[in-house]
Amino acid sequence: MTLRIGVIGTGNIGQDHIRRITQTLSGATVVAVTDIDAARARQVAQRFGARYEESGQKVAAAGDVDALVVTTIGSTHEEYVLAAIANRKPVFCEKPLATTAAACKRIMDAETALGRRLVQVGFMRRYDAGYRLLKAAVDQGRIGAPLMAHCAHRNPEVGDGYTTDMAITDTVIHEIDVMRWLLDDEYASAQVLYPKKTSKASSHLADPQIVLLETASGVRIDVEVFVNAQYGYDIQCELVGETGVARLPEPADVLMRSQGRRSVDLLMDWKLRFIASYDVELQAWIDDLAAGRSGGPSSWDGYAAAVTADACVQAQKTGQIVPIKLGVRPELYS
Amino acid sequence: MTLRIGVIGTGNIGQDHIRRITQTLSGATVVAVTDIDAARARQVAQRFGARYEESGQKVAAAGDVDALVVTTIGSTHEEYVLAAIANRKPVFCEKPLATTAAACKRIMDAETALGRRLVQVGFMRRYDAGYRLLKAAVDQGRIGAPLMAHCAHRNPEVGDGYTTDMAITDTVIHEIDVMRWLLDDEYASAQVLYPKKTSKASSHLADPQIVLLETASGVRIDVEVFVNAQYGYDIQCELVGETGVARLPEPADVLMRSQGRRSVDLLMDWKLRFIASYDVELQAWIDDLAAGRSGGPSSWDGYAAAVTADACVQAQKTGQIVPIKLGVRPELYS
Amino acid sequence: MTLRIGVIGTGNIGQDHIRRITQTLSGATVVAVTDIDAARARQVAQRFGARYEESGQKVAAAGDVDALVVTTIGSTHEEYVLAAIANRKPVFCEKPLATTAAACKRIMDAETALGRRLVQVGFMRRYDAGYRLLKAAVDQGRIGAPLMAHCAHRNPEVGDGYTTDMAITDTVIHEIDVMRWLLDDEYASAQVLYPKKTSKASSHLADPQIVLLETASGVRIDVEVFVNAQYGYDIQCELVGETGVARLPEPADVLMRSQGRRSVDLLMDWKLRFIASYDVELQAWIDDLAAGRSGGPSSWDGYAAAVTADACVQAQKTGQIVPIKLGVRPELYS
Amino acid sequence: MTLRIGVIGTGNIGQDHIRRITQTLSGATVVAVTDIDAARARQVAQRFGARYEESGQKVAAAGDVDALVVTTIGSTHEEYVLAAIANRKPVFCEKPLATTAAACKRIMDAETALGRRLVQVGFMRRYDAGYRLLKAAVDQGRIGAPLMAHCAHRNPEVGDGYTTDMAITDTVIHEIDVMRWLLDDEYASAQVLYPKKTSKASSHLADPQIVLLETASGVRIDVEVFVNAQYGYDIQCELVGETGVARLPEPADVLMRSQGRRSVDLLMDWKLRFIASYDVELQAWIDDLAAGRSGGPSSWDGYAAAVTADACVQAQKTGQIVPIKLGVRPELYS
Repeated sequence: MTLRIGVIGTGNIGQDHIRRITQTLSGATVVAVTDIDAARARQVAQRFGARYEESGQKVAAAGDVDALVVTTIGSTHEEYVLAAIANRKPVFCEKPLATTAAACKRIMDAETALGRRLVQVGFMRRYDAGYRLLKAAVDQGRIGAPLMAHCAHRNPEVGDGYTTDMAITDTVIHEIDVMRWLLDDEYASAQVLYPKKTSKASSHLADPQIVLLETASGVRIDVEVFVNAQYGYDIQCELVGETGVARLPEPADVLMRSQGRRSVDLLMDWKLRFIASYDVELQAWIDDLAAGRSGGPSSWDGYAAAVTADACVQAQKTGQIVPIKLGVRPELYS
Repeated sequence: MTLRIGVIGTGNIGQDHIRRITQTLSGATVVAVTDIDAARARQVAQRFGARYEESGQKVAAAGDVDALVVTTIGSTHEEYVLAAIANRKPVFCEKPLATTAAACKRIMDAETALGRRLVQVGFMRRYDAGYRLLKAAVDQGRIGAPLMAHCAHRNPEVGDGYTTDMAITDTVIHEIDVMRWLLDDEYASAQVLYPKKTSKASSHLADPQIVLLETASGVRIDVEVFVNAQYGYDIQCELVGETGVARLPEPADVLMRSQGRRSVDLLMDWKLRFIASYDVELQAWIDDLAAGRSGGPSSWDGYAAAVTADACVQAQKTGQIVPIKLGVRPELYS
Repeated sequence: MTLRIGVIGTGNIGQDHIRRITQTLSGATVVAVTDIDAARARQVAQRFGARYEESGQKVAAAGDVDALVVTTIGSTHEEYVLAAIANRKPVFCEKPLATTAAACKRIMDAETALGRRLVQVGFMRRYDAGYRLLKAAVDQGRIGAPLMAHCAHRNPEVGDGYTTDMAITDTVIHEIDVMRWLLDDEYASAQVLYPKKTSKASSHLADPQIVLLETASGVRIDVEVFVNAQYGYDIQCELVGETGVARLPEPADVLMRSQGRRSVDLLMDWKLRFIASYDVELQAWIDDLAAGRSGGPSSWDGYAAAVTADACVQAQKTGQIVPIKLGVRPELYS
Repeated sequence: MTLRIGVIGTGNIGQDHIRRITQTLSGATVVAVTDIDAARARQVAQRFGARYEESGQKVAAAGDVDALVVTTIGSTHEEYVLAAIANRKPVFCEKPLATTAAACKRIMDAETALGRRLVQVGFMRRYDAGYRLLKAAVDQGRIGAPLMAHCAHRNPEVGDGYTTDMAITDTVIHEIDVMRWLLDDEYASAQVLYPKKTSKASSHLADPQIVLLETASGVRIDVEVFVNAQYGYDIQCELVGETGVARLPEPADVLMRSQGRRSVDLLMDWKLRFIASYDVELQAWIDDLAAGRSGGPSSWDGYAAAVTADACVQAQKTGQIVPIKLGVRPELYS
């Protein structure tokens, strides 16, 4: 039984996912695609043997489309995800689930009204081999109860269009989701510190920043976000527990001895860091649908990330410790 | 265009490959299977939606079979690979290509007579991400011209049926192939040293051993093979060049700090060490066939491994330095 | 010319220093000792061939004493350091210089009145080979301008007498000094966070804690202090600069492969972590005196540490961001 | 009680040892020096407050000289060591003990006739912290009974005067001694392999080489010696035992992340690699003499190294496996 997928949004990430489903993964095929740029959508459709549709609504409603992938610009996610729910079709929506907490809530309301989970949000780090090993170590009790986490998210550089709040909404958003998942805990408050600014950043950008998160159970997380770190793309995560410490593996690479140094190359391109996890993520989604399970990040996870990101942005602006209030988690997501 | 595959041999590795092709990889399907154990083959056929055939010859001849996978016991490989060639069908044959150099030569003769490469041998290490990074480092000139290689192949333990020559034919055979590929060189001689024997080995087994290989260009390779090393499954490879040294990456895992130690878990089970490379290997085979290419280990590679293994076994028995003579490489394999 | 030293305080650290000067270091000898426990002082004097004196004041005034080492309880440091200054004798005083900022100031005033630096404070980490390599890397511009530092100070466990404020005054005090020295900067503010408490700590002790320091130039330092971390004694320091990151070396030890793990032993006993730096520190003090130099931590450094520790303790109590104000640095210490 | 030392030979290593004894170590002083270059010896004498003597024989006989340090050219060692024994004075002789096995034997005969060990040979690696940790790991049974050792000795480059046999007598000689000590075993045979030659070596020099040693108990040691390795000075030693593997620590240094790499600097200058072990070695010698012990490398160790080096040089020349025969160890050295 091959899952027939409709893809809304044929930009870079959309094309990547179509190629993935078509050429790498097993159990699914792309039957229909659309995009705000019709010419691009038509080209992509032809290249991958799919049908062009005139709108996301038409893709969602098409009788031969079993499930949807939404890879449009974030501001349109709500519309297409709601369309998927209205058509009672499973939908994989790239992050963010929606651009406001209110929109995320509307999606949860629609799902809750239906009484069935249909939405998976594209937080791919949960599918990274390294984070999975880290979670396994914690879940097996190898460091005791977690008390603290020290994270860093460093990019070599960003373009001039990158703004201070994007350090939260585009960058730390990944840590926001993956640390909730690693710790199985919700956030209680956020604070943002501004270290000395690097001379390599645009005049309008505060870089680096340190985001301090506290969870409901009291775990303290510090995330250094440094998007003009020059030297490489570098993701660090260390969990400190009552009896030990566990650290996210570095990507495996050749140990070189040359020119007076023992060294390992670092990635310069963020796209390569989690490239394998996209495959794992989408294959798991396809397999889960085939098996009638739902195991990935839910609308609640998308909502929690949105509320937390809002609090972090407010903390950026006010310099205060901002409380994070999610309200009651609907039973559907327990 | 989905490649229709027939599988001859439905034991462990055969079932693994069928599952792989059916559930994980893209672009191929298994249509027919057979096995010396007909009941097992029938069960496997039913489980994966394939047809049972009564013999390997019938699978090879079947009109709806585009390509073959041979995963029977080594002594039968020659027969089925020759059947594939006779039917002008591509065949992926698990290592060894055949159990004697003469048999490997007969396969090369058949291919050469046809004038087309149809055979790929299952040396999966060439598809391991770590070895690929190592080869890239060498090929990019990052260590200068290679001069030496230091390898280790350690297993926690082996069963009582494991004999001294199996250290070559079952174990070092992987280093024999992968080092030829890494260095792009042929072997010239072999010598085997017997260190002090571990008390953990069977009385009839010489363990550990050190295999010394010399290549045509003079590169010296030492391979420690130690199959009752107790502590883990551990594959080491260090290449020493004119200007630097490159080492095969260790599998990435969580760095733990606990109980007075900073540590990383080692694998105990060899099956896990190269599990991802089987997927890459078979997907590459499928993709190469679809694209009309042939990129994997050839019959010549299978033959060279067989001749080298023979020399190593002779070196085990005689304690002498044994020359390795491959003869002229047919143009088909250049 | 052998430097003749008088030692005030013959407890553990005092005896260590006497043994060091007598048996390991070059260029000095211990001629006189005293202690509040006269019997102990007499025994120590006899063991090391020194003379017992009845009081610290007598040691300071003795005609054959060229320089003093003060290793009494912290509350008496002021008295003996002032006595040394009154006698115009160089004095090596174990940390803290004094237990209050006011007392440190009185010491600076006495030195300033004299117009000569006579005091060195026992901050031994500045003499650790690892910290020296780290400072060299920063000073050579290998990470660009420092922007942030991430530190951890973890002990396996502490006794029941260890209180929350001792996390600052006994533990983080080392980071307070060494980070000032590494960054060549003064502190501007302190904040303390309380993560989820470990179940391994005494009921009265907040453990772990995170101390956030900001320097005058804006560098942000976070210090995790976790004194019941169970797994080992572990000192971490990572400096993040505009173009790179430098990390304090781990103590070198044998890499073991055994029992399914690749591992390196960690120290359990803090005394061993910086044991070599005590030798280097005292030898440098002796050599500096012989050469008429003064290169070690000064009274100003002792004062700055005291003021910063006070601010951290206040931050512990109030939960607020506490400003740190040192006042003007006397020219003597520039 | 200060040990009064006479130094024969005031070249580089001689001056280093005089400075060490005078300025760094405790418990000894240099009272007399001599050298074939009298002007140099006079200068050194003056600089360190010692007396110039006209000959090694006079230094050895001087009434105020308690012990001797011999740091002349190797060919004169026998004479001065025998003079020390004739004067019944302890002597620290830099390696080699003598340049022929016969000369080493004459020294042992003199000591044996006297019935007392007076000679210590300057094999400083036994005093290196890393090798000591490695030996402790082995002696504590952490890898089980040792079966194999893999070593590498790499220099960035050597001068044109360096000849093929110096790879043994100047370079591998260190591994020859330290592996005997680590394994507490004697050698039984030697073989030398010549890998492909590096283009960076002089035309007359075979570089790299692989020296294969077998011990009496059957342990197999391979030593890669590569003296134009370009990239750094690098000493590797891995011991493989029945239950685990232990590796010599790399020198601790700052872990850098910069310019697309995670890296640690390597030493380029061999003098720095074991610099601390010279201090430890000579201090241990001084302390042992004060305590009436003899714990360092003996004449037997010097003799065993000489015989083994001879066998290795013969193996270089013949390409054969050369047996190593030490004869009976005199009881004095058991």
